[in-house]
Amino acid sequence: MPNQAPPRGLFITVEGGEGVGKSTNIEYLRRYLVEHGVDLVVSREPGGTAMAEDIRQVLISSRTEPVAAMTELLLIFAARAQHIETVIEPALARGQWVLCDRFTDATYAYQAGGRGMDPELIRHLEQLVQGDLRPDITLLLDATVAVGMERARDRGALDRFEQEQLEFFERVRSTYLQLARESSGRYRIIDANQDLAQVQQQLHGVCEELLDCWGVRQ
Amino acid sequence: MPNQAPPRGLFITVEGGEGVGKSTNIEYLRRYLVEHGVDLVVSREPGGTAMAEDIRQVLISSRTEPVAAMTELLLIFAARAQHIETVIEPALARGQWVLCDRFTDATYAYQAGGRGMDPELIRHLEQLVQGDLRPDITLLLDATVAVGMERARDRGALDRFEQEQLEFFERVRSTYLQLARESSGRYRIIDANQDLAQVQQQLHGVCEELLDCWGVRQ
Ligand SMILES: Nc1ncnc2c1ncn2[C@@H]1O[C@H](COP(=O)(O)OP(=O)(O)OP(=O)(O)O)[C@@H](O)[C@H]1O
Ligand SMILES: Nc1ncnc2c1ncn2[C@@H]1O[C@H](COP(=O)(O)OP(=O)(O)OP(=O)(O)O)[C@@H](O)[C@H]1O
Ligand SMILES: [Mg+2]
Ligand SMILES: [Mg+2]
Repeated sequence: MPNQAPPRGLFITVEGGEGVGKSTNIEYLRRYLVEHGVDLVVSREPGGTAMAEDIRQVLISSRTEPVAAMTELLLIFAARAQHIETVIEPALARGQWVLCDRFTDATYAYQAGGRGMDPELIRHLEQLVQGDLRPDITLLLDATVAVGMERARDRGALDRFEQEQLEFFERVRSTYLQLARESSGRYRIIDANQDLAQVQQQLHGVCEELLDCWGVRQ
Repeated sequence: MPNQAPPRGLFITVEGGEGVGKSTNIEYLRRYLVEHGVDLVVSREPGGTAMAEDIRQVLISSRTEPVAAMTELLLIFAARAQHIETVIEPALARGQWVLCDRFTDATYAYQAGGRGMDPELIRHLEQLVQGDLRPDITLLLDATVAVGMERARDRGALDRFEQEQLEFFERVRSTYLQLARESSGRYRIIDANQDLAQVQQQLHGVCEELLDCWGVRQ
């Protein structure tokens, strides 16, 4: 008898502006899910493979040369294509869950919201590169730009994105909130202005929901 | 009275497989055209700007990780978008001629012909990234794969493309020849199996034609 394919894993993304606490809370989520028996792959975008991390460096390096919006967008989707084909899809197909620090919603927030690119162009590349692949659940860590900036401040030299103006980050934040309204079934908005204990209490609630729905709990 | 815009420059590309003599003959073309009064910008793809050269490195580096065909294609067009916006378009608009070592025909030859990607996908990205920009004249240096390989041999470690099999380069060559047949108005096929003096005699003829048609000759 042929082996039965395992049920496909859950694809969870964590989104939000600079310094809202994505990396910190992904570590919290990772520990929680693994302790509850989830076979989990943790990754990030842009990046997630050696080649995609090389592309990330090209993207975020500060440059004297002006960077064309189209160049930035195609680099992001090049890294994403590599990440999906070599990491995300194989993991989901094996039945592993994938927890990813940013994904395509960040492209809508930064390149459409922040930079003013046409979101239809992003939708188009999303279809081309991802086919049907979309996150099952997206946790939006939402904090005011001031709070995010304050938290992100102490990290040394700013990369090409971190050098943007406040209004850029305001547009990023409001685009994320709009995406969450438009896809309310997939989104969970976490108030990330609160202190870490309170944020993680909210995340705990979402994890319970996921484990209940997806029946992994032993 | 407003200044009159200069007439748009001529966009010349040089194509052909590995080692056929593109770089060598671009130097010949450069000297000839400059001596005859052309204000010329010489460039290459993938590359042509600091950022696009970074992307070139990501593309050609040998890797243990398998590189998704879509990743490669999007990286090539990311580099191209940057090259067009910061180098090629401004030069042509100023009235300079641009002489470029490879351009989008190489994407048809290598990614569609060599790798088997759908040429419609390339056509699609070409439209998205280039709009109406197409080369005015394309010089195809055509030599057998054996001759190209023999000439390219002595250059040390092979990059990711140079490591492909002979059949790959045969498909590249025949795709180039097919493009030349389909766009015979734009293409000039140069027999690059011949020795350098004979190749340059052929190129001399093309240069004469260009200078006559485009009226730069003093
Ligand atoms: N709720 C919170 N309250 C106070 N401090 C926090 C909170 N969440 C995160 N921090 C702190 O804020 C800083 C930035 O957090 P973190 O690196 O996790 O943010 P990030 O969203 O991953 O940032 P980036 O967008 O740059 O990746 C860290 O020093 C972290 O300890
Ligand atoms: N017609 C020719 N006859 C003999 N040798 C040649 C001829 N054309 C070029 N060569 C020599 O072949 C070698 C490869 O030439 P060149 O680097 O110009 O090729 P290329 O097409 O630019 O290669 P690549 O595809 O790797 O960029 C050089 O050593 C060059 O001097
Ligand atoms: Mg982070
Ligand atoms: Mg060369």
